[in-house]
Amino acid sequence: MNSRLHFGAIIDTLKKVLPWNDEKVFLHEPYMQGNEWDYVKECLDTGWVSSAGKYVDLFESKVAEFTGVKHAVAVVNGTAALQLALQLVEVKAGDEVLVPALTFVATANAVAHCGAVPHFIDSDEKTLGVNPSKLAAYLEEIAEMRQNGCFNKQSGRRIKAVVPMHTFGHPVDIEPLLELCGQYKLELVEDAAESLGSYYKGIHTGNFGKLSILSFNGNKIVTTGGGGAILTNDTYLAGMAKHLTTQAKLPHKWAFCHDMVGYNYRMPNINAALGCAQLEQLPSFIVKKRDLARRYQEAFQGVEGVSVFSEPDFARSNYWLNVLLIDEKYIDHREELLAMTNRQNLMTRPAWTLLHKLSMYNECPRMDLKGSESLERRIINIPSSAFL
Amino acid sequence: MNSRLHFGAIIDTLKKVLPWNDEKVFLHEPYMQGNEWDYVKECLDTGWVSSAGKYVDLFESKVAEFTGVKHAVAVVNGTAALQLALQLVEVKAGDEVLVPALTFVATANAVAHCGAVPHFIDSDEKTLGVNPSKLAAYLEEIAEMRQNGCFNKQSGRRIKAVVPMHTFGHPVDIEPLLELCGQYKLELVEDAAESLGSYYKGIHTGNFGKLSILSFNGNKIVTTGGGGAILTNDTYLAGMAKHLTTQAKLPHKWAFCHDMVGYNYRMPNINAALGCAQLEQLPSFIVKKRDLARRYQEAFQGVEGVSVFSEPDFARSNYWLNVLLIDEKYIDHREELLAMTNRQNLMTRPAWTLLHKLSMYNECPRMDLKGSESLERRIINIPSSAFL
Repeated sequence: MNSRLHFGAIIDTLKKVLPWNDEKVFLHEPYMQGNEWDYVKECLDTGWVSSAGKYVDLFESKVAEFTGVKHAVAVVNGTAALQLALQLVEVKAGDEVLVPALTFVATANAVAHCGAVPHFIDSDEKTLGVNPSKLAAYLEEIAEMRQNGCFNKQSGRRIKAVVPMHTFGHPVDIEPLLELCGQYKLELVEDAAESLGSYYKGIHTGNFGKLSILSFNGNKIVTTGGGGAILTNDTYLAGMAKHLTTQAKLPHKWAFCHDMVGYNYRMPNINAALGCAQLEQLPSFIVKKRDLARRYQEAFQGVEGVSVFSEPDFARSNYWLNVLLIDEKYIDHREELLAMTNRQNLMTRPAWTLLHKLSMYNECPRMDLKGSESLERRIINIPSSAFL
Repeated sequence: MNSRLHFGAIIDTLKKVLPWNDEKVFLHEPYMQGNEWDYVKECLDTGWVSSAGKYVDLFESKVAEFTGVKHAVAVVNGTAALQLALQLVEVKAGDEVLVPALTFVATANAVAHCGAVPHFIDSDEKTLGVNPSKLAAYLEEIAEMRQNGCFNKQSGRRIKAVVPMHTFGHPVDIEPLLELCGQYKLELVEDAAESLGSYYKGIHTGNFGKLSILSFNGNKIVTTGGGGAILTNDTYLAGMAKHLTTQAKLPHKWAFCHDMVGYNYRMPNINAALGCAQLEQLPSFIVKKRDLARRYQEAFQGVEGVSVFSEPDFARSNYWLNVLLIDEKYIDHREELLAMTNRQNLMTRPAWTLLHKLSMYNECPRMDLKGSESLERRIINIPSSAFL
């Protein structure tokens, strides 16, 4: 039998880092100490709460400015953003899309919402995201280039795109992925749902894909209640994204004419107002969250059996959710650690169940997923709100 | 040449009814004089702005209570609600769904989002909604019953459902439609996006379909910024609707496990808070809007060439958007009337372009649409906000 993980030391260390007073410490809570009241109240006072209004435009320009991506289109959530981004790079029903097995289910759902098939690829311990060298070897084995793109020799389906996800805010190693995309004519769509405020070699995540997406769900570093955005440096695609999110209505003073099958995916003004106030505080949130990560890293240095995940060399991360990695020899004790910490009101959780293990995706194609399987066993998220 | 419509009399009558002072009068503006700020502020103060929170549950129970439908599931908008409702009655890719040609494009888009094909049917001057006797005759001609349902003899596709829409709030004649659905084994899904507060023979719209949907967009009688709801008296379907709108996550204290391809369609708490305050005012909104309709009807009685649409005998309508019907002989002057009223800051608009005329739907199957074509030519919506 393995030696026992020293639960007491881990819990004591968490309590030492966190401002803990017996009350429940959540994984990630919103923090609203800025202009949230003022902006939201203005929406109510003027009646501009819905899909038109100044805050939607303002929010989009502020997101674009912060990320350095030319265009941002604000939508109802990150899943909808990803579905549309995939449609905009012409993922069609029956195509395959390469997605990490280690990601939130929404990444694969967005693929499925396009009628396409998620094809699961492995992740890397250094980044928690897609492992580019392993993907290169895999594509060499299974991919066949034809006139109309890259095909999976095993399934016969076209592989149209790859969707790396910046896990818990940590940038994936994206340059080699871009090279692979060039080589195999795959579209790159970045799932930056968790990485607002994270940089790859000094450039904000979301600048590398033909399109990228953000999420502003309640648990994200910046929230709009529910919301997301499509990012792109391509002006035509940005225009199409906006058109498709507003039921593809053609501009006219009074007539109702639509030229495509569109969606009601526009972010409401009241949610954008909240987002504007939150964005103003984003730089301070990042400082606070990086400081919390540093405190965790220092405090856990002497603790046997666990380590705190640190950003890769090439990255400057928002540390959206901090990760405690349990050493392989102690993984039998993970469930007990989860139970014990949650019982003590210190909220922790494991990584997502790997997506190929979920019933609706277990017939989907996948590569060897040893890296993801190890990470799935070892990851525990620990409280990471900006105010902690 | 036809005689000219008397524009001056129409504009004078609008000005007489409306509290008009040169400022722009919109078609439908939100009215927020209740507890909107208190409830929304509470969300901001507590941080409960996102997909969990007391207002989402409260809003759902208030919507259920008001409509008399057993279950309401609050979602991001009416289009998403309709797409899910269609999926829940097992509309599959390649099926046909009968929808009026005279409706907002979202009705057909939701069908297309399921991979299904909208099949356009005609509307009735008495209700502005689906004409049941014409549909009966049409189905007799084109429908063929097979073991697995009703098939369109011409296209070979299965016809799975019919989606009547209560146009501008006026209930469609739903009993004969229910009979037809029984006869042809079609599922009835009510598009009640515009008819919150409207009753058919004393029963609130939304109680007749296996599932029904509401919209709370900014232009609706009650708004949540952006939002919608799925209504059903079927407890199993209500549970499935909620499950699918929350990424099909299985309840667990910390583990992430999902058993279906779900959606991020849950209404955020901050939007539900707004909705709770709005719902409290709904009874007074209905009184005000019915009074405005009465004033329009009286004032336009003596005006040649136009009439104000009145609720059918069997209905008690919310008069969401008032309708001025232009006599056929004056329809050549409609564009001029629209231009003139809008120029004078009295917002008016024509009905939606009939959906079979839109490029993405003009290959879809359809019946003779004479009734809808006449209505499309003749309808002008006039300002209808509750506070007017």
